[in-house]
Order: sequence, then C-alpha cells, then structure tokens
Amino acid sequence: MVLGKDESEMAERSDRSLSEDENRMNPDSEAEKKKGGSRSRRGEDESNGLSVERIFEGQAVPSWGRQLTFRAFAVSFMLSIMFAFIVMKLNLTAGIIPSLNVSAGLLGFFFVKTWTKVLDKSGLLQVPFTRQENTVIQTCVVASSGIAFSGGFGSYLFAMSARVAGQSTDPQSAHVFKNPSLAWMIGFLFVVSFLGLFAVVPLRKIMIIDFKLTYPSGTATAHLINSFHTPQGAKLAKKQVKALGKFFSFSFLWGFFQWFYTAGDGCGFTNFPTLGLKAFQNRFYFDFSATYVGVGMICPYIINISVLLGGILSWGLMWPLIETRKGHWYPAEASPTSMRGLQGYKVFIAIATILGDGLYNFFKVLGRTLSGLYHHLRDREMSHVLPIANGSSPENPQVSYDDQRRTQLFLKDQIPTWFAVAGYVAIAAISTATLPHMFPQLKWYYILVIYLFAPTLGFCNAYGCGLTDWSLASTYGKLAIFVIGTWAGASHGGILAGLAACGVMMNIVSTASDLTQDFKTGYLTLASPRSMFVSQVIGTAMGCVISPCVFWLFYKAFKDLGLPGSEYPVPFGTVYRSMAELGVEGFSSLPKHCLMLCYGFFAAAMIINGFRDLVGKKWARFIPLPMAMAIPFYIGPYFAIDMCVGSLILFIWEKINKTKADAFGPAVASGLICGDGIWTLPSSILALARVNPPICMKFLSRAANKRVDAFLGS
Amino acid sequence: MVLGKDESEMAERSDRSLSEDENRMNPDSEAEKKKGGSRSRRGEDESNGLSVERIFEGQAVPSWGRQLTFRAFAVSFMLSIMFAFIVMKLNLTAGIIPSLNVSAGLLGFFFVKTWTKVLDKSGLLQVPFTRQENTVIQTCVVASSGIAFSGGFGSYLFAMSARVAGQSTDPQSAHVFKNPSLAWMIGFLFVVSFLGLFAVVPLRKIMIIDFKLTYPSGTATAHLINSFHTPQGAKLAKKQVKALGKFFSFSFLWGFFQWFYTAGDGCGFTNFPTLGLKAFQNRFYFDFSATYVGVGMICPYIINISVLLGGILSWGLMWPLIETRKGHWYPAEASPTSMRGLQGYKVFIAIATILGDGLYNFFKVLGRTLSGLYHHLRDREMSHVLPIANGSSPENPQVSYDDQRRTQLFLKDQIPTWFAVAGYVAIAAISTATLPHMFPQLKWYYILVIYLFAPTLGFCNAYGCGLTDWSLASTYGKLAIFVIGTWAGASHGGILAGLAACGVMMNIVSTASDLTQDFKTGYLTLASPRSMFVSQVIGTAMGCVISPCVFWLFYKAFKDLGLPGSEYPVPFGTVYRSMAELGVEGFSSLPKHCLMLCYGFFAAAMIINGFRDLVGKKWARFIPLPMAMAIPFYIGPYFAIDMCVGSLILFIWEKINKTKADAFGPAVASGLICGDGIWTLPSSILALARVNPPICMKFLSRAANKRVDAFLGS
Repeated sequence: MVLGKDESEMAERSDRSLSEDENRMNPDSEAEKKKGGSRSRRGEDESNGLSVERIFEGQAVPSWGRQLTFRAFAVSFMLSIMFAFIVMKLNLTAGIIPSLNVSAGLLGFFFVKTWTKVLDKSGLLQVPFTRQENTVIQTCVVASSGIAFSGGFGSYLFAMSARVAGQSTDPQSAHVFKNPSLAWMIGFLFVVSFLGLFAVVPLRKIMIIDFKLTYPSGTATAHLINSFHTPQGAKLAKKQVKALGKFFSFSFLWGFFQWFYTAGDGCGFTNFPTLGLKAFQNRFYFDFSATYVGVGMICPYIINISVLLGGILSWGLMWPLIETRKGHWYPAEASPTSMRGLQGYKVFIAIATILGDGLYNFFKVLGRTLSGLYHHLRDREMSHVLPIANGSSPENPQVSYDDQRRTQLFLKDQIPTWFAVAGYVAIAAISTATLPHMFPQLKWYYILVIYLFAPTLGFCNAYGCGLTDWSLASTYGKLAIFVIGTWAGASHGGILAGLAACGVMMNIVSTASDLTQDFKTGYLTLASPRSMFVSQVIGTAMGCVISPCVFWLFYKAFKDLGLPGSEYPVPFGTVYRSMAELGVEGFSSLPKHCLMLCYGFFAAAMIINGFRDLVGKKWARFIPLPMAMAIPFYIGPYFAIDMCVGSLILFIWEKINKTKADAFGPAVASGLICGDGIWTLPSSILALARVNPPICMKFLSRAANKRVDAFLGS
Repeated sequence: MVLGKDESEMAERSDRSLSEDENRMNPDSEAEKKKGGSRSRRGEDESNGLSVERIFEGQAVPSWGRQLTFRAFAVSFMLSIMFAFIVMKLNLTAGIIPSLNVSAGLLGFFFVKTWTKVLDKSGLLQVPFTRQENTVIQTCVVASSGIAFSGGFGSYLFAMSARVAGQSTDPQSAHVFKNPSLAWMIGFLFVVSFLGLFAVVPLRKIMIIDFKLTYPSGTATAHLINSFHTPQGAKLAKKQVKALGKFFSFSFLWGFFQWFYTAGDGCGFTNFPTLGLKAFQNRFYFDFSATYVGVGMICPYIINISVLLGGILSWGLMWPLIETRKGHWYPAEASPTSMRGLQGYKVFIAIATILGDGLYNFFKVLGRTLSGLYHHLRDREMSHVLPIANGSSPENPQVSYDDQRRTQLFLKDQIPTWFAVAGYVAIAAISTATLPHMFPQLKWYYILVIYLFAPTLGFCNAYGCGLTDWSLASTYGKLAIFVIGTWAGASHGGILAGLAACGVMMNIVSTASDLTQDFKTGYLTLASPRSMFVSQVIGTAMGCVISPCVFWLFYKAFKDLGLPGSEYPVPFGTVYRSMAELGVEGFSSLPKHCLMLCYGFFAAAMIINGFRDLVGKKWARFIPLPMAMAIPFYIGPYFAIDMCVGSLILFIWEKINKTKADAFGPAVASGLICGDGIWTLPSSILALARVNPPICMKFLSRAANKRVDAFLGS
C-alpha cells in the first residue's frame, strides 16, 4: 500500500509562505519573524516584544454569544459564495489552491467596517466591531470554503463520474461510475463534514495550552486580525483593500473582455500561442489567466520554479521522446485521451511522483509527531505543575501577561466533553446508516472501521499541522482509497467504495486540523472557543450547501468539464480515479515501460526530498519540490508560465520597492484571483442561459490560414 | 479655384501644443507661458525674467566652423534615418504627423553627451558639447525628416502612381500615371528642395531682428536646448531620455510580438475587433498601435476629440445611411474601392471639408500677414532708429542684454546676398532644364512661372508661420495643383503636371518657413546663421537620399501599400489624386448628391472656423476643428480611438501627478512613436526577404467559426 499527499499540501505550503507575508504586513509582531527559521515555541515570543494584550487592555471582550453577530454571518455568507467560486475554479483548472486567508481577512474587515461606519453615522450602531467578531468571520469563511476543497469536486467525488470513468484503461471499469447530482452531494457532505469538528473539540486544551503548538497559519491570521484593529493597522488595511479592489475590477473586466472572443473550441486568449505554434502544441504558452498570475505572486518562488521545471522536463522532453516510440511502446491507434496511450504515461508518472513525495513526508511528519508527543508527555510528567501555569516549557516558568489573559479567556467558555462525544457518536451513527444507501459498494462495516480510527488520525493530523503547518488530509484520503478499495475488491465495485471512503476520511481529518488552527487564532485574539465552534458549525453547514451548488453550476454550464485539454480539465479527477483503479486492479493495464518509469520517479521524489532535508535550509530553497513538479506532468506547463509571470512581477516589484511589494503584493494577487474567480459566476450563468460569445479569436498556422481564406472566399 | 490646407497644418498644430509641453519642461522660461494667450512680442519677454545669456556668459561661443562638428552630423545622420521611418510610417497610415522636435532634441543631446562623456573619460575629448552644436543637430534632423513629409510620399508623389490611379472614377485618368522609382525620386528632390533655402536667406535679418517674429516652435526648441545645457536641465533631460528609452523598447518589442500573428490579410492585432464585429466593419476598433497612442498623447485634446467626432459622424452615421441608398444614389455593382461608389462620397466630402477649412485659414493668415507687414513697415519708417537698437517696438526703446548679445552674434557671420541670389538662379535654371525630362507633362514655362512667384510665396509663408506657427505649405501646393492642372488641361496630362507642380511649390514654401524657424532657434542659442545654413543644406541633402530610400523599402516590402483597408492605405494619395482630377476635369464624375454634400461640408468647415474665431479663446477650445474631423472620413475612425486612448492615458496621468505627466508625457509619447516606427525597418526587411510570420490571429463570427471548424476538421 502506498500513501501520498497532493494538492492539499500545495495549498498548505502556500499558506506558510503567505503567513510570512502577513507577518511583513504586521510590523507589530517583530518576534513572529523568527518563526520560519527556528521551531521555537511561539507562546513566549510575544512576551519578548511589546505585549499585544496590553494594547487591547481597555477594550472589553464581549461574551461568546455577542461575538456571534448577525452581520458577521451575513458577511461570511457573501464571502463564502465568492470563495466557493474561486476555490472551485482552481480545483477544476490546475488544482493549485493558494491560501485565501488574507483576502478573507481583508474583505471581512472591510465589509463589516463599512457596515458599522454607515450604522454609526445613522446612529443605529449598537455593537462595535471587535477582533473577536472578525475572527468569527474568518473562521466561518475558512470552514465554508474548505468544503469546496475537501468536498472533492476536483478529486475523489468527480473521479466517480462517467466522464472520468470513460477515460479509463480498463473497459470494465468504465461501467463503474456514479454521476454527480445535487441531492446526494449535499447529503453526503452533511453526514461526513461535521464529524471532524466533534472529534477534535476535547483535545483543544491539550494542543493549544498544554502543548503550545505553533500553527503558523493560524497564528499569522491572528496577528493580521489583531493588527487590523489597531489604528495604524486599520489604515494599512484600508489601503490594501483599495489595491485589492482595483485589481479585482481589472481582473473581472479582463475576464469579461476575454469572454467575447471565445465563440468556439480553441478560441480566445486561453489558446493564445504566445510562444509560437510548436510550443503551443506542447502546452507551452502564456494563457493570460489573471488567476494563475495571482497564484504565482502568492506562492513562493521555488514552487513556481518547480512547476516550470516539471513542465519542461515532461512536456518539453519526456512526452516528445515517448511519442517517438508510438507503435512500439504503446498502440499507435490509441486515442489521445486513452490511458493505454501517451496519456497513461502522463497520469501514472505524475501519480508515482506525488505518492513518492507524499510517502516521504508522511513518515517525516509522523516521526516528528510521535517524537514531539513523547517529549511533551515526558516533560509534563516531570514538571507536575498546573497546566495553566505550565506552558509545557520548564525552562521558562514565568508566564507573560499575554499568555495569562489568553489562557484565562480560552478556558472561560468550556465545551463539555460529553457533548463532543455524544455529537460524534450520533453523527457517526447517522452517517453509517445513510452512506451505504448512497454508495451500495461502501458497506456499513467499512464506515464503522473508518470512524473508529478517524479520531486518532484526526488528532495526528491536527498535531502535525500544529508543528509543521502541513495538513496531510489528502494523504489520509488516499490511504483510505487503497485500504477500502483492496478490501472491497474489483468485483464489488471497489473503485467507488475506495473513492467514497477517501471522501469520508478526508473530510474528518481536514476539518480536525482546520478547527484546531481556528482555536489557535481564537486563543490569540481572545475569541471564545465556543463561538469558534459555533462559527465552524455554521460555516461548515454553509459550505455543504454552497459548494455543491457552485460545482453544479460549473458542471451544467461547461459541457466539456473534465475532458483533457478543455478549459476545465479537472486534472486530479483522473489522478484519483487512476489511483483507485491501481489499488483495486494492480499494474496490469499500464502501457509498456510505464511501470519502470513510475518506479524511477517514485524513487527520485523520495531522494530529492531526502536531499532537501539533508543539505539544510540554506540550500534546500534551491532544490525543486517533486510534488510541485508533478502537477504539470498531466495538464501541461501553461499555468506554470502564468505563475512564473506572477513571480517575475513580484520579483521586479520587490527590486523597485520592497516595502510596498511586501505590503501590497498579497492584496494585488488576491484581487487578481478573486476578480477572475468571480467572473466565472456570470460566465457560467451566461453559458447556462445559452448566451454564446459572438467572436472567435482563432490562431491558425500560415498554411491553414491560406486554406481557410480560400474556403471563406469561395 | 479653391485652396486648402491639410495634414501639414495638423503637424504644425501639434507642434504648437508640443511647444507648450516643452515650456513646461523648461522651468527657466517663465515668460514663455504667456505665449499661448497673447501674441505679444517675445524678444523682450526674456528681459523681464532672468537673463538667459548671463547664465551662459562664461561659456565662449565657438566660431561657425567649429559649430559644425563631424560628430554632430554623424548623430544627425542616424537620427535622420530613424525619423524618416517614423514620418514615413505616419505618412502612409493616417497622415497625422506630430512634431518630433522634442524627440530629436532629447535624442541628439543624449547621443552627443554619451559620445563626449566616453571621449572625456578616455582623455580624447577636444571640443566640449555646446548648445550651438546641439542646435546644428536639431536643424539638420528637422531639415532631413522634413523631406520625408514635403517629398510627398504620402501625398502628391504617390498620387501619381498606377496604384492610386486605378482607384479613380475616370477610366481615362487611370492610364495617366508615373510609378515611383528610386532614381527619379532622388533626382526630383535634389533639384527642388534647395531652392527654398536660398530664397529665404536674404530675408532672415528682417524676420528675426527687425520684425522680431515669434516663431513659437523655433523659440520653444531653443529654450529646450538652452535648458539642456544648464546642469539642472541636463539632469531632467537624462531622466526624460530614460523614460523615452523604456517606452521605445516596449513599443519596439510590442511591434515585434504583433508581427508573429500577421500571417495573412485581416490577421493580427491591427484587426482586433475590440468593440465587436459590427463596430469593426465600420472601422470602430482599437488597433493596438503604439504609434497613434503616442500621437494622441502629444496632440491637444481637442484634436483627438475632433478626430473621434468626425469618425462617429462619418462612419457611424453618414456612410451607413448613404449605404442604404445603394442602387439609388450610386450603382449597386460599384466595387468598394471605386470612386463611383461609396468611396467617392468618402473622398470628396473629406476634400471639401479640408478645402473649406484651408481656404478660411489661408485668408485669415494672409490677412494677418499683410496687416502685420503693414504695421511693421509703418513703425519702421516712423521710428528711424538703427535696426540693431530698434526691436520694432517703440514702447520699449531699451535693449536687454540678451537681445544685444544675440543680435551681435547673429549679425557677425553674414551670408552674402549675391551668394543667395546666385544660388537660387543657378538651381532654378538646373531645375527648369531637368524637370520636364522627368515629367514631360510639366512644361518648362510652368516651372519658370512657379519660380518667379515662389520667393514671394515663401516669404509669405515664413512670415505667417512666424506670427501664427502655422505653415501653409500644402495649401500653396494645392494652389499649384489647381493652377497648373487647369493650365495644362486634361488632354496634356494635366493631372501629372498638377501633382508635380504641387511638389515643386510645396518643397520651396515648406523649406522657407522651416529655415526661418531654425534661424530663430539659432538666434536664441547663439548659433551662427552660417552654421544653420550649412546644417540645413547638409540635412536637406541627407533627406533627399534617405527619404526616397525609406519609401522605396516600404513600397517594395508591402505589396498592398496604397490600397484602401490595407495596413498602409496612404489616405492622402487618393485625396491628392482626386483633387488633381477635380481641377482638370470638373465635377462631372461624382456620384449622385455628392456635390451637394460637398458644398454643405465646405460651407460648414468655414462656418465652424469662423465661429471658433468669434467666440474667443475660452470657448473655442470646445469647438472641434473641421480639418481634424475630415481625416477619418476617408480612412475610418480606428486611429481616432488609438489617439483618444493616448489622450485618456495622459488625462489620467495628469490627474494623478501633473508635474510628472508634464515633464515625462512627451518623452513617453515619443518613445511609443519612435519604437513602433523603428520596428517598421526590420519588419519591412523581413517582408523583403520573404520571411513570413508563422501564425494568423484571425477573428471570426461564431457562425463563420463553426463553418471553419467543420472545414478544418474534415
């Protein structure tokens, strides 16, 4: 059995880079800057610098019920819809999802601030806007848009559809499918998404207060929110919102303009052979996508470079070479989308690299989790002091004012353990009873086994994420694909069982780590754990409805969704399906030499990762990430060029004015991503209403153009 | 007989606007700012502010021979080639030519400064770079690139060709043509271009010192050069050169990039239906031309607005309306390029408007010239003081230091009158003897008559230009078309005789005003009249060789040059040819109601101009210029949209940062114009070498695209 990790970690890696950006935007948290370099405990860092809570001392903390305002959820709902579109677009195009926490924070702040300002002027304002309320919005939006990712619309869920099944190597497997439908998707999400919340609630005190885990993203978000609510921070935030708005409009209008020229297949700017026709055939071109330029601006340079390198290695070198073996290595008559042809090499080599990288990191994080856990528990037994005054660090018995105040408020509103356990058992029971009706292949005892192990795995993931900021949710999901797939076997529809099990596992594990991140954010902004929990529940419920609806809109509006080479190729749909088939049926159906190449890339991914860890931080940042390199293997390097354009823009900007680039880069990037993402809403509505664009911008070779001119002239 | 003015005045008007820009760039010349508002004499203005010549007092003025350095002419030669390409491109596309004096000044300064700096470091520098030398470069480049315009490659000379003749209404006229050829073009230019220089030389003292004429463009150029040679001015100039260089590269690379997508007719960015296919059919679109965006940034807002209004009036309203009368007003089977069809309305209504505007301004300027002359002569007789201490203004008998020093140096190097007269007679004799061999239709006595009147007309034009900054060269040229055309008559090939006579007249009259402008510049920068004269002679000689060669390159490289709707439609070629036919043959061949419409537009042009003069300066700037409105009548409003984009950019820039926009706007615009203009050099070489672009970016309607996809698929 092989385990891996994929696009979810990509998102987390960018998350990490973004948290660094957030730090730059937040001049108060000088101590934060150490974070990247050393894994020192964060709790005490604040006590070295200026105490944050002293600044907010005069401000009363509202009760947990008052933190949950109507306006907060109204704004959250709006933002959730917006981010659902963005995440869905990213899911369905290249599968690289940067963290949108900054945009969520900025926009949430902006909307509520505008709201309260208007009410304040009209004399109707009763409750001032607090950072606790801001945290509630942030939590709700993250929970809701998290479902758009962990719902698997770009991976396991879509992998069940007939459209992906039709591309399979195995003619028998093509008949095993379950097409998406709004009803069962919403039902499925509702029965699996809430389990993670209850699984991790009893452990929050251990993670946050006793172990004092880092949670870099959560901490960074908290600092962002804290800084917004100081006068200087609010001023900067306003400017950032302005920059975001400007690029949002630009990106939206650019998407709108492009639409007019896409009357047919292969039309429009997305098919612009910017680097020539030959390069275009190998998918080397700049496709004018504002989204991926923005993504490139947010992702660290090394990810962009890795993606480009991967693209050059695969589409520039390997595929053209393998293509010369057509008729020898694989049948010449194989269709370009058949897994028995060149497509097979592309998908399985990508999977091998992703699994190699994933397995390496799984064991690395697991090892670190276990050793960390061991040390924590040993320290605890040795010191025998009260948890509240402990801080898990015997070398620093003094507790700072910040820690005192935060711990006090964190422990004020308790969520009873019996409530969490009862909730978990109740939902697990409902889930076990209903899921086999949705997926007859997924027997009730498979689900029961998953639910027995899930809290442990959820804890592992939450703990690992707190240490390294990497959520391994999709790795656990793939584990489920292989375990349940093999258990069910091909004859009993193991492919569907595996994919469904993947969904169940991924949702639990991913929410577990997300909620703990939020608890950390709440701890640092004095938001009550109870309001955090309620906000997560409401956010998850929103996500369970919004995400399937948004996916449904895309699915109905774009008829070629999921087909290779189309506007929305849903790359990971094919990858997940192929993994499920591999788990169930073995390697028999792969084309010639493909397995050998897969072994090579699997080993290379592990070796490169090992090398990265060996040479130390200084040199590691020059070594590409195998995971990032694997993504273009299947879909082509065009989005890598977009991302590198984004990198280049940021690089030049940093050369010209580093301060400005640091402060406004993430806002500009978010604007580009959000504007283009939101344009997909009117665009898919237009497609649904059968309003077709009027013009086709076509690119023809000189010879073809002559023929077309002769044809049109006659 | 009807007289008019056209694209040459357009250039001069922009010139005027540019001189204002130059003033802005030149903080020293505070007094200059009055220029626009009042027609007060300029000579004294300097004495009110800080004396310019006091600043330069310590700097010795080199003798006239030392002002003429080799490096100056080397740089002039390079810039001449560059500007020949730019002017030629503008000639052959829309015919609007902004003043390139700023670019010439900036680039000349930059090249020689770099040159001297390098030599200075290597210890080889013997002669420092003086403002006199800078003036010599400026004069030489202006003289040389002036030929690219007055050589008539976009107007009378190309109007003789078979390609334009073929579009005529009159089937007989189609056989009267003389195709361009390198040999006769160079010969023709050499025998006609030097006459103007000798004609005006004896009058320079009267114009500059006695009459103290304004010459706004020449004065502005002088101030620019003076400011460059003060330390602060040099610093600003360096920054401006940097901005120019940046946009030059951008514009050049953009042209290069566009080239790849132009594999066939109707391909590439120049055919981008930016505003939709329907608008594109009526030539409303943004064609991504960096040149005309730059031109729009240099031209005053009212010109851009006028051009756009004219485009909307004609292509948005009139032509679609007239087209509904197809089969009634004009034969339905008329080809789209035939003058008997819709094309006839376009060309003749444009001519009527141009002539109406031209006639109005001709009489206005003539009236002002005569009254100004009368007053000058009367004042002179009344005061009876020495010319040197006079300054033509009895209310200010004191002479400033600046005036004293300038007059002293201006009178130091004399050009003997006998030399000028002898030169004129000798060249006129050669010209009279050789021209009838080139154009058998142009009898020697026509030429003799032209040469008898030419010095008077040259003086008139130089004087009028000194007062108003408008050169009426092409109006005098059109006068010649009608006079000589009618005299020769249709049977004796009056069309060719008229066009050739136009060339002779235009060259004399235009050089006369240019040289006097240069004398003014020389006067204000202490450059010797003798070095000015030599520089003009050398510049003219350069232009007589460079311009025909550049035109030849275009002519050979672009096979559809001169055809309507092509990349280089040479709009004024058709206009001049049609005027010559009109003069020779009368109105008989015009389509129905066309003559009536022409009368209407002729009258409207005069009325609008009269109205502009009546309402005063405050309101006049909101009234469109009929001349500018007429240009898109024939070629369509697409370049108007480019120009308005340029205007918009400048407008927004001025809103954001007025100081910066004023200082760098002209440099950025020049960069855009120069880069795109220079790209035409490699582009035409590629075309000559039969290197065809590889890709066609085509724009098809949805229906056409479906058919094409079906055709390509089969």
